[in-house]
Amino acid sequence: MTDLATTINHQIRLAARPVGLPKDSDWSFTEEPVAMPAEGGVLVRTTHLSLDPAMRGWMNEGKSYIPPVGIGEVMRAGGIGEVVASRHPAFAVGDKVSAGLGVQEFCLIPADQIKRAGLVKIDTRIGTETQWLNVLGMPGMTGYFGLMDVGQPKAGETLVVSGAAGAVGQTVGQLAKIKGCRVVGIAGGPDKCRWVVEELGFDACIDYKSGSVRDGLKQHCPDGIDIYFDNVGGEILDTVLTRINRKARIVICGAISQYNNTTPVQGPKNYLSLLVNRARMEGIVVFDYADRYGIAVAEMAGYLKDGRMKSKEDVVDGMANFPATLLKLFNGQNFGKLVLRVG
Amino acid sequence: MTDLATTINHQIRLAARPVGLPKDSDWSFTEEPVAMPAEGGVLVRTTHLSLDPAMRGWMNEGKSYIPPVGIGEVMRAGGIGEVVASRHPAFAVGDKVSAGLGVQEFCLIPADQIKRAGLVKIDTRIGTETQWLNVLGMPGMTGYFGLMDVGQPKAGETLVVSGAAGAVGQTVGQLAKIKGCRVVGIAGGPDKCRWVVEELGFDACIDYKSGSVRDGLKQHCPDGIDIYFDNVGGEILDTVLTRINRKARIVICGAISQYNNTTPVQGPKNYLSLLVNRARMEGIVVFDYADRYGIAVAEMAGYLKDGRMKSKEDVVDGMANFPATLLKLFNGQNFGKLVLRVG
Repeated sequence: MTDLATTINHQIRLAARPVGLPKDSDWSFTEEPVAMPAEGGVLVRTTHLSLDPAMRGWMNEGKSYIPPVGIGEVMRAGGIGEVVASRHPAFAVGDKVSAGLGVQEFCLIPADQIKRAGLVKIDTRIGTETQWLNVLGMPGMTGYFGLMDVGQPKAGETLVVSGAAGAVGQTVGQLAKIKGCRVVGIAGGPDKCRWVVEELGFDACIDYKSGSVRDGLKQHCPDGIDIYFDNVGGEILDTVLTRINRKARIVICGAISQYNNTTPVQGPKNYLSLLVNRARMEGIVVFDYADRYGIAVAEMAGYLKDGRMKSKEDVVDGMANFPATLLKLFNGQNFGKLVLRVG
Repeated sequence: MTDLATTINHQIRLAARPVGLPKDSDWSFTEEPVAMPAEGGVLVRTTHLSLDPAMRGWMNEGKSYIPPVGIGEVMRAGGIGEVVASRHPAFAVGDKVSAGLGVQEFCLIPADQIKRAGLVKIDTRIGTETQWLNVLGMPGMTGYFGLMDVGQPKAGETLVVSGAAGAVGQTVGQLAKIKGCRVVGIAGGPDKCRWVVEELGFDACIDYKSGSVRDGLKQHCPDGIDIYFDNVGGEILDTVLTRINRKARIVICGAISQYNNTTPVQGPKNYLSLLVNRARMEGIVVFDYADRYGIAVAEMAGYLKDGRMKSKEDVVDGMANFPATLLKLFNGQNFGKLVLRVG
């Protein structure tokens, strides 16, 4: 084991608020000596970082569901790591943990930040490190509670999910299948669409990059749409709105098509379909369900174990690749949950 | 009494589907002899017609919550009238009734159309004919169920309602006050705003025609907005979205600012505020609550009687004035529920 006291912690910090897609100059690479924990604190060595569409929002100024990352701060990121020093009774050296580690090789979590960082031990017998960032992590929790609490699926209903091959999408679609729904995905490119249908068992998947989403929905949702789980916003949201059923639920989870706009967000011009169909559009933020994560993890770990649920992660090596890798989310190049392996 | 057999029924029919604001040439004036009811039918002489923003939607081609009015058909309208001939045991000559009468002086309702037309007797001791088209009629029912079922007000919450001096708006605001909410209206012009505050008891009313709705909301909703009852759509909806609270409910009742667009509807570009605030936007169509109208009428008749609720109708005389009077809704010239007195 290396001597921590002489180890350097490499970090990536937000240098500027991006306009449009983040550029290299929006980041700064810094380093500092690793600091050891004081009483009640824990030092974690990052092994895997979660790259998520929500990160783009955290980089903007202004009020949102959490404060923005400050200029000069280490970029916020959820991650998996290993405890390398601990003065906290619940964490021992060698424990695998999940927490808000930030884009850095080491994260020192003082006693009073343990809860805020969401530091918890993970059990790698239940799922791999990357699954703990996917189905068993934030995206999985988002999909689970967004679907179950806001979407409220009933057997026999039709669910459409965009970003179907992404982290949230794969959870939502598979879970909705287990709950007895007809499930139609929307994804970019034939590989993702094939995987979603053949491997995950969706009833169909519409390739928005080739052909018409409108025609695809017409073909694959002959009884209309009861639940739409939206990760993308923009034109696709508007198209889905034309085909919803009475009392449909639209779960607003994200709008990745709009995050790098330099013009205003495209509002859903067909929103009056909510009126005509007595339908509902509702936002979800996963943190609201923190006290119930355990229930969702237990249920989905069971599905992973018995094979009813699969997961796919797109793992890229090397923390220095963070800026370029993040962009894969916005051009749709990631295939599955995007994870950066560190160290 | 005139001899019905020789009486002429004057009617206004939809001649063409309007592009933008309805023009004179979109209407045709026709007449035909009054026909007497067959077994089980009723003949009603129209006394008052309800003019509503929803009428503009009924004039458009295409799927909505009810079929469009066909070209050449008598324009659909709710109304109050008097039974002048009856072969139905539940209706006697002289009864005051409410029904979908259409823009015509007489409406013959055959036995098999009684239910579909919504033919019911009204009790003018409970409310005047015009109140039966306002607080005790469709707008009142819309406001009642939209607020109570979708808005779900809790004492101490802040409600904002647009079209505050209109038929639905006056019901919603007064009812929300009775339920213990802080109520802020949005209306056009100082007279309406003054009336809403001084006569109806709203806490404040923002004049969207003079000054900034954004500043008004900031001033009058210091604790944010928990419920927004939207009758107008467009810029006002977008502005309200910037000031909603966590778990806010937005009731989509209408979007009068958009009904005469010749360009696409303006979608709410701030809809991602639903995500940030875990808020909900939901449509309401009054017909879904038909089996509970009686409950709402009973409750609101009580408020009218004890003075806790007032109503204001804007009554215009003469059926021939229908085309011009309808336009008052769209330029905001009506002050209170717009009613056409016929005959």
